[in-house]
Amino acid sequence: MKRGLFISVEGTDGSGKTTQIELMEKYLRTKGYDIVLTREPGGTNIGERIRSILLDTSSAEMTYTAEMLLYAAARAQLVSQVIKPSLKAGKIVICDRFIDSSYAYQGFGRGLDMEEIAQVNRSAIDGIMPDITFFFDISPGDALARRMASAEADRIEKEKLDFHMRVYSGYKKLALLYPERIKPIDSNRSIEEVHKEVCGYLDQITQGGAF
Amino acid sequence: MKRGLFISVEGTDGSGKTTQIELMEKYLRTKGYDIVLTREPGGTNIGERIRSILLDTSSAEMTYTAEMLLYAAARAQLVSQVIKPSLKAGKIVICDRFIDSSYAYQGFGRGLDMEEIAQVNRSAIDGIMPDITFFFDISPGDALARRMASAEADRIEKEKLDFHMRVYSGYKKLALLYPERIKPIDSNRSIEEVHKEVCGYLDQITQGGAF
Repeated sequence: MKRGLFISVEGTDGSGKTTQIELMEKYLRTKGYDIVLTREPGGTNIGERIRSILLDTSSAEMTYTAEMLLYAAARAQLVSQVIKPSLKAGKIVICDRFIDSSYAYQGFGRGLDMEEIAQVNRSAIDGIMPDITFFFDISPGDALARRMASAEADRIEKEKLDFHMRVYSGYKKLALLYPERIKPIDSNRSIEEVHKEVCGYLDQITQGGAF
Repeated sequence: MKRGLFISVEGTDGSGKTTQIELMEKYLRTKGYDIVLTREPGGTNIGERIRSILLDTSSAEMTYTAEMLLYAAARAQLVSQVIKPSLKAGKIVICDRFIDSSYAYQGFGRGLDMEEIAQVNRSAIDGIMPDITFFFDISPGDALARRMASAEADRIEKEKLDFHMRVYSGYKKLALLYPERIKPIDSNRSIEEVHKEVCGYLDQITQGGAF
């Protein structure tokens, strides 16, 4: 049934995700693959409208459960409208954040029950999981310092540093729990060095039997 | 812990809910109760923003699962921000639609799995269920005819009649399943007759031990 390849990209804000995604896309296009680049929350009209509620700094009164459900709603829409059809058409989908963000931010960060997050997301992902997940690993202290100073920080970015530390160590735990899928990439290096390591994994997975 | 009274109001569009809610509110205020009137989806700033996504006719591509999760997100926010604090303060909360709408519309209407709806909503309602639910019972054929003709019908209202028939018979099944809580009110009568029957239940529940 499924023929494409699903890559998700995770990490705290300021981990260099965006730059690395652009380089990944360029690298895979050069190799002739058909790429669909998307992001969470968002990636669809409905998802982008949900995103604007989630990231609006005026949404300070949002409960953790409502937040978790809104992320799941955007995810359900993205899976059905973009990810599933693209995989079916044999494309490579690169998604900036996916289900691990819910575990890292709403689970480890907010303290919501993991089983509750898992149950809600079972509806949302409808059986679709990434084939490989890159976790861009950089300490939030370093990574966020420059973002937090920015006047344009959104509601999630404005959380206190200890929240981002919980998210970060959550990601590290997830990477230990799912070593087959989640690849931690030391991002405290130059853009080129990081990209080179990512390319190694991309070569493996596109040449392997999985795709 | 809980001291107030939670009344939810259900029914298909055009069942006269809105008029009856106004009369209920007036009746209970006259008796000296402190009333909080709210609605789903909505009732909070965040919920109203979710509502505008849900009812927007341009959201036609919305998947049933995303829809169900968005209703749950608005509900989680409403429970935490409005319903729980109001009940704790000893007030009577009247809510235009609550969890039964998810079973009737997303379950019976859309055909989503009931257990899935139940699991997602367990997070959303956080243990809060209505003490009494009025189901304004009128055949959608009669009730919707005039609404469907309206130029202002929203995305849900514009669904075909067979959808509304499934929702309607879903409500009837729910009323059979939970007769202690859900009271069907024959709404094919004058406003005054319907209101009189509602007042009978309101007198019972406000004079009984529950409140």
